[in-house]
Parts: sequence; C-alpha cells; structure tokens
Amino acid sequence: MGSLKELGELGIIRIIERSLGRSKRDPVGFGDDVSTVKLTNERLAVLKTDMLVGSTDVPPGMTIRQTARKAVVANVSDLAAKGVKPYAGIVALGLPQKLMRRDIQQIANGLSGAAKEYHFPLLGGDTNESKDLVISIALLGFIDGRRILLRSGAKIGDVVAVTGDFGSASAGLRAVLDRKIRPEKLPRELAAALYRPNAELETGLRLAATGAATASIDSSDGLAWSLHELAKMSHVGIRLTDVPISEATRKFAAYYGYDALHLALYGGEEYHLIVTVKQKLFRTTQKAARGQLKPIGIVTKRSEGIRFSGNDENIKIEMKGWEHFRQ
Amino acid sequence: MGSLKELGELGIIRIIERSLGRSKRDPVGFGDDVSTVKLTNERLAVLKTDMLVGSTDVPPGMTIRQTARKAVVANVSDLAAKGVKPYAGIVALGLPQKLMRRDIQQIANGLSGAAKEYHFPLLGGDTNESKDLVISIALLGFIDGRRILLRSGAKIGDVVAVTGDFGSASAGLRAVLDRKIRPEKLPRELAAALYRPNAELETGLRLAATGAATASIDSSDGLAWSLHELAKMSHVGIRLTDVPISEATRKFAAYYGYDALHLALYGGEEYHLIVTVKQKLFRTTQKAARGQLKPIGIVTKRSEGIRFSGNDENIKIEMKGWEHFRQ
Repeated sequence: MGSLKELGELGIIRIIERSLGRSKRDPVGFGDDVSTVKLTNERLAVLKTDMLVGSTDVPPGMTIRQTARKAVVANVSDLAAKGVKPYAGIVALGLPQKLMRRDIQQIANGLSGAAKEYHFPLLGGDTNESKDLVISIALLGFIDGRRILLRSGAKIGDVVAVTGDFGSASAGLRAVLDRKIRPEKLPRELAAALYRPNAELETGLRLAATGAATASIDSSDGLAWSLHELAKMSHVGIRLTDVPISEATRKFAAYYGYDALHLALYGGEEYHLIVTVKQKLFRTTQKAARGQLKPIGIVTKRSEGIRFSGNDENIKIEMKGWEHFRQ
Repeated sequence: MGSLKELGELGIIRIIERSLGRSKRDPVGFGDDVSTVKLTNERLAVLKTDMLVGSTDVPPGMTIRQTARKAVVANVSDLAAKGVKPYAGIVALGLPQKLMRRDIQQIANGLSGAAKEYHFPLLGGDTNESKDLVISIALLGFIDGRRILLRSGAKIGDVVAVTGDFGSASAGLRAVLDRKIRPEKLPRELAAALYRPNAELETGLRLAATGAATASIDSSDGLAWSLHELAKMSHVGIRLTDVPISEATRKFAAYYGYDALHLALYGGEEYHLIVTVKQKLFRTTQKAARGQLKPIGIVTKRSEGIRFSGNDENIKIEMKGWEHFRQ
C-alpha cells in the first residue's frame, strides 16, 4: 500500500495540491492547463511548466533535436489552449553523462528553433547532470483575465469542436512500439504527428480574442481523457456525433489490424485544441478561427456522461489515456 | 573528444546560449543569476529556474522533505541576490517509481513549507516518472530595472561584503562524505548549513532598495567561484582582506585535519549574498541591511585578479568550485 503505481499520477497530484493550497491571488486554481496569478484586477500572469523525461516521453526514432523541440511545443500548446501568447521562457536541463557535444548542440537547436517558431525568447536557465534526459520548460504569458479560456465554462447546448483529425500520433507510436513499421519508414503523416507535432497557437489566440469560446483544453492527454477533463471542470456531459480520424490512422489501422476509433480516442501527445462554443456564435467563431474548427458534438447535462453516437454506434467514452506511474 | 566531461558545465552552457541568442527584450543577458524580460521601459519580469537532481545534489542524511525545501531555497536565493521578491512559482517533478506515498507527502510538505517561509504561492506544475528524483522550480518576480542588482556593476574602490560566515555547508558535506561524522551526529551549525540552508531574501530586498549596492551574487557556487563570476561580469579584480570562516568550520577542520580556509573558499551550496557597495555609502547600506554585512575586501583593477592578503598570507583565489560534469 502506498506505492506510486497504486497512487497513480492523479493521486500524486492530489497530495501535492492539497499541501500547496490555493492562492488567493490565483483566480484559476489547480486542474487547468496552466497556473495563473493576478497582477491587477484585469491582468493575469500565466505560468506553465511541463517536463519532458527521456525514459518515458521519447518514442523510438525521435531525434534528440526533435525531443527538445517537442518539450517546447508541449508547453506552448497548453498556453495556446488558454488563448495566451508565450511572452518568454526558461529551460532547466538534466543531461546524462553519456551525451556528446553534438547532442548538446542538437538540444540547443531544437530549443531555439521551437522558440523561433512560436515567436518568444528562451532567456536562459539551468544545466545539471542526471541519469535521465530531462528538459523542463517554464513559460510566462499575460492575458486579460476575462479573455482566458479555461477548462471550466462549457454550457449545455454549446458546440464541441476540435482543430484537427485524431489518431496519427498514436498510430505512429503503435507502429514503432509494436515494430510494425520502422521509424524511418513511417508514412509521412504519422511521422510528422509523432516526431514533429505543432502547437496550435495562432488558432488558440484567435479563439480567445472572439470571446465566443466558453471552454478549451489541448488534447495532449488524448481526446477521450481531455474531453473528460473539460466535462469534469465544467460540470457537464458531452455527446459526440463525430470523432474525426485522420486518413493515415484509418489506413494504418486497417492494414495492421488496429481499431482506428480507439487510436483516435485513447492516444495522446497530439496537440489539437478542443473547444466549446456558444451555438449562435459558431459561424462567426469558425470565421475567426479561419475555418480550423470541426464540430464534433454538443455539450449535455453532466448526468449524460460522455458518449459517442455516430453512425451505428452509441458508446460510452471511457476516461482512459496515458497516466504516468500506472503504465 | 566531445564528451560532456571534457566540455564541462560551462562549455555546455556556452553552446546553448550561443544557439538561443540574446533577446532584444532582455536587458540583463546570459550569465547572471536570473533571466529578465522587459515589460515596460522601467519594469522587468524576472524568471529563475534551478533544477535539483537526486543523484548529484542531495548529500547523505538529507531527508526528502529537506531536499524539496532546498530546491525552493536555491531558487529564492538567486532572486534574493538580485533584490527581487518572488511573486509566484511553479514546480515540475520527476519521480522515481520506488518512492512511496509518504515520500510524496514529504516532498509536498517541503515545497509548501518553503513557499510559506518566503511568502509566495506555488501555483501548480507538472508530475512525471523518471529514474532520478528531479525537482525543477521556476519563479517569477518583478522589479524596476533600475533597482535590480546584477553581477556586473562593481567599480574600483567599492567595498566587497558578505552576509554570513563561510565553510559550514562544505564542512558538513566533507564530514558525511568522508565518513568522519554520521549525519545524525553532525554539529548543529554544520547540519543546519547542509540540510536546512536559508535564502537571505530580506537582506537582498533591503540592499536593492538602498540603491547603494553596485553588484551582487549569491554564494551558492562557492565563495571563490562566485567572487570570480562577479569580478568577470564587472571587469574588475578583488582584494580580500578577510575570509569569514564559521566557528564550526574551524573546529571541524582543526579536529579532522582539513584546511578551514579551503572549505570556506571552495565549497558551495551556501546561500549568502556577496555584494559590492560604494565606499561612501557603506555605513548607510549597513544600516539598511540591519548590520548583516561583513566587509571582506575591496574592488580593484581587473589586472590584479582575485587575491587574499590577510594576516600573513597573500594568495591567489582560484576559480574553483563545484562544476557539474567535471566531478
């Protein structure tokens, strides 16, 4: 009794949050994608930290440069989901002795390249020796507290929409983990999703600017898990009418005997946005988001849970996805 | 050629800084204790991240709660040296599977206790599985850019002063590493320095408020190393007339045959402040710092290097201290 495997990531987080307590200056609280602290009545400082660990977060075939880039993307994606522009970042590194100078150069290139992609400066940080490769990024942003997109806020009747098709990252991961396809032979779309994911920052910023989105989360913990988180924080249910599955996922699943819907729902490490939008404002919001939104369902009563009633199916979406310490 | 051992921590940092490039919005640049980014002409956001790694940063006998506390203290100390109050923090954890629920509770208590000591909220963060225990803290503060205390800024003739006696942390570390004294039998002052160091935040804030300090650094990399860093960034030399060695260090050194001066100069993990102050303003600065300053020497020309000419000695202070990857 009391092992981390039994406790799971959520149990660990609960212990820590209980001990830290919620700050009076933090209008958002624990359990969202980012942390916030009030600067003035209107203005929030937004902080985000996400740590990448070599032994658990790096799929076979990912270069060290891609790894460093992804560490940044994961952080930017959480700010994107809140509608917050990264203003600056810092990085703390844990580096195993076995790395070489060229690896350090690749890490540096991955970090600086990603910062350029998303137009913010990485200002410095800290370097340490460690057994695992560890890349811990912290980002700072600012936003008007009335504009920030939270996980809470979805209302019954809102449209649920996403910014992309799902499954490619998990199909790519299964392909290389189950040794179906060698990393260098992965179909282009799967390789891109697995090794070079993008944070949808532009879309997130546009959505926050409209004021029509009621809640938002990124899908990095998997579509199903993220829908559950959003629904829990908003005290609502969700009825899905569509799960957009990427063409490459369908092809991979059909050829190698996987369940494409399962890959799309219960994967992770895919950085799309999941948002809820007031029904009446959906068309103008879609325009603001430059057509990037795909409606996938509707917000319902909490008691209805999270279900998918597509074509001939009516299934319960389980709260499953990647959870550290349980795997 | 090209191993991290050959490259050393400084070599690694150089590669990364070159790749990141300096932001136009960063008036301080790399190589100081903290990172900064301009908010307005006067106001800076100050960011600090320091990562604690279990396998290299935790001395024998330190509890996991003390470890978590110290991870916070190390970050606060760097803000203290710049005269910046921590406004909020976040934490990313890497946790080995072998930890138990009670360990997590102790980490949580160590983190929250330290945040309370220094009066800022830890707002949240990220939890991961890793081989090493990793505690990566990031702090945010704000300061008027004209008030921040940098490593650069010391002028010839300034008084060099410190806020404490040196050696206790390294004496304590040698005592337990060389198995001279068991952790639980350590003299109180050595145990406190090693296991429960304090960041001198109040003094740092008071010093910045006076406007009389010209440069400042914390001594966490060792007194000698930190003096060299300050001198390098200020393009000056330093003539020490005194190295304040703690009584407990003298006793330990005499009894077990260590060089007390060496312990005081070349140790580390001791969180005093090292500041330079305009000579004419020293007395008023001392008052502002509530008598916490001990003058230890004077700023000289760069060409004079860093020397100690106490009683009968006139020695060159080497740039030695703890450097990751070289040990």
